[in-house]
Amino acid sequence: MTILFQSKGDDPAKWRGMLQAELPDETVRLYPDELGDPGEIDYALVWKPPQGMLAQLPNLKAIFSLGAGVDHLASDPDLPKDVPVIRLVDEGLTIGMTEFVTFAVLKHHRRIREYQELQREHLWREMQVPLATNRRVGLLGLGELGADAARALTALGFQVAGWSNSRKELPGVTSYAGRREFGEFLVRTEILVNLLPLTEDTRGILNRETLGELPKGAALVNVARGPHLVDDDLLELLETGQIAEATLDVFHEEPLPAKHPFWDHPRILVTPHVASVTPAETAAAVIAGNIRKLKRGDTPGPIVDFGKGY
Amino acid sequence: MTILFQSKGDDPAKWRGMLQAELPDETVRLYPDELGDPGEIDYALVWKPPQGMLAQLPNLKAIFSLGAGVDHLASDPDLPKDVPVIRLVDEGLTIGMTEFVTFAVLKHHRRIREYQELQREHLWREMQVPLATNRRVGLLGLGELGADAARALTALGFQVAGWSNSRKELPGVTSYAGRREFGEFLVRTEILVNLLPLTEDTRGILNRETLGELPKGAALVNVARGPHLVDDDLLELLETGQIAEATLDVFHEEPLPAKHPFWDHPRILVTPHVASVTPAETAAAVIAGNIRKLKRGDTPGPIVDFGKGY
Repeated sequence: MTILFQSKGDDPAKWRGMLQAELPDETVRLYPDELGDPGEIDYALVWKPPQGMLAQLPNLKAIFSLGAGVDHLASDPDLPKDVPVIRLVDEGLTIGMTEFVTFAVLKHHRRIREYQELQREHLWREMQVPLATNRRVGLLGLGELGADAARALTALGFQVAGWSNSRKELPGVTSYAGRREFGEFLVRTEILVNLLPLTEDTRGILNRETLGELPKGAALVNVARGPHLVDDDLLELLETGQIAEATLDVFHEEPLPAKHPFWDHPRILVTPHVASVTPAETAAAVIAGNIRKLKRGDTPGPIVDFGKGY
Repeated sequence: MTILFQSKGDDPAKWRGMLQAELPDETVRLYPDELGDPGEIDYALVWKPPQGMLAQLPNLKAIFSLGAGVDHLASDPDLPKDVPVIRLVDEGLTIGMTEFVTFAVLKHHRRIREYQELQREHLWREMQVPLATNRRVGLLGLGELGADAARALTALGFQVAGWSNSRKELPGVTSYAGRREFGEFLVRTEILVNLLPLTEDTRGILNRETLGELPKGAALVNVARGPHLVDDDLLELLETGQIAEATLDVFHEEPLPAKHPFWDHPRILVTPHVASVTPAETAAAVIAGNIRKLKRGDTPGPIVDFGKGY
C-alpha cells in the first residue's frame, strides 16, 4: 500500500520516519515531489491540500486530516465524495490545547494584562478578583478538545459550562445545546473560549450580537478558526468595554497581516496559531492505527460527517 | 470572650461582620481603636502586628495568623512564648495560590513572554515547546499550598517533583527530601516554583549557587517570600541566560521600591503580592471553627512549631 503525505506546515522527513516505524511494509511518498503514479496512492495524509489535489487520486481508500479541524477539506469543491475523511483525535493535540486554554483563562481571570500595565508604570496596586469557584467560564464546543479543557478548568474550581449541537454529560459541566439555549449560555459566561469546528453554521458566530450578550467586561479566547470571529465587531466591543480583553490564536488570514489592527491592540494577545500543534510523535501512531484498521476491514475513526461539517 | 482583629491589608469591617456571623456570642474589637482593656482580649487575629503588641495582652489564649506564613510573627522578639500560634489553612487561600502558580507555570512553559515580544514587532513565528508531559516542574515546599499546586499541575500532565523537609506521598509527584536531595531536585527542574515558609533555614535559598544547578534557561516563580531570593543573584543569572525568565509576586521590601531594577526587567513579571490573598468569606469560618474548638477544650490546628519555623 502507498501513503501520500502532504503538508506545508509540518516536517515531512520527521513524519516519514514516524510512519515507516509504525508501518514498515507501506511506502510513504511526499507530495508533490514523490507523487509518481496517482493511481498507486491508497491513503492521503493532508493539511490544507491544494484544491483538486485529492480528486486526482483515483484509487484513494481514505483521507486523513493532519489536524482536528476539517474546514481545510470541506472548502475544496472537488473533494472526492465517496472517500471517507478521518479527523485527527490525538492525545498530544488535546494536551497542548488544554494547556493553552487553561493559560488564557487564568490570564484573564487573574487580570494579568492589567498587572503588566501597572508594572510598566512601577505601580504597586492590588486588584480584586473572585476565586475560580466564583468565576464562570463558557466553552463553545464540547468535542474532544472542549471536553478535556472543561476537565482541566473544573479541576481548578471554575464554574464551567459548554455549548454544543447536542447535549453532553460531563462531570461538573453545565451543558447547553442548540441555538435555542445559546443566549442563556452567553449571558452567564464571563470568559468565553471558542473551540467550535468551522462550518457554514458557525462562521461569524462571534459577532456584535452574540458577544453583546455576554456580561459587560467579559473576555474572549479564540483558539478555533479566524472566520468564527467578525474582527471589526470585536474591535468595536473592545472600544465600548463590552469585551475587556481577548486572546486570539487564529485569524481570517494567517500569518496575520502586518497592518492588521489586532497586532497593536493593547487588550489583545496575539499568538501565531500555536495553541496546539499536531505532534508527529503521537499523531503518526494514531493515523497508523487507523490505516491498520482499514487494512483488516475495521472502521477507522472518527469519520467526518460533512452534513454536520465535522 | 473577646477577639482582637489587627491587619493593615484587610477590610476590618468585613472581617468583623464575618466573625460576628460565625460567633454571635463573642465581642470583636478592632486594633488599635477599640483595644480597650488589654487584659480582656482572649484571641488575637493578626497580620504583621506591631512588634511587642501581642506581649501587651496578658490573658491571650491563642494567636491566629491571617495568612499561611508566620514569619511576620517569628520575627517579633517579644512574641509570647506560651501562647499557641495557629496558621491559616484556608481553602480560598489554597485555590487562589493554585490558580496563580498554574498560570505562571503555563506562561513560562508556553513561552508567552516571547510571543508578546513578537507581537510588539508584528512577527508571526512559531516557537517549539514540549508537551506538558515532557516538561519538568519543581515545587519547593509540599505543604497545603504545594500539594494542591502539584495536584493541578499533574492534572495538566506536567512531570511534577517537590522538595520538602520530610518525604511526602502525593499521587504522581516525585518527592525529594532534605538538603542531601536538594541538588538532585534542582538539576531535573525546568520551571521552579517557590512555596516554602520563610525561616532561618530558607532565607536566601534562591541564590547564585542553587539557581545555578537548574538546567540552563530555567524559569523561576517566587510566590512565597521576598527574602527567599537573593535579588542580585537573580539579575546576574538572567544576564547570563542561566535563568530565562521569572515571575515574582513577593519582594524584600513591599511595595517594591519604584527604583528597584525588577520593575523594568524585560524578563520579569512583577505582581504586587497578589498570588493569593486571604478571603474573609472562607477564612473567618476556619478561624471561628478553631475558636470553638478552643472553647470546648479541643486542639485547634495547625499549631505552629517555631522550632521548625512553620
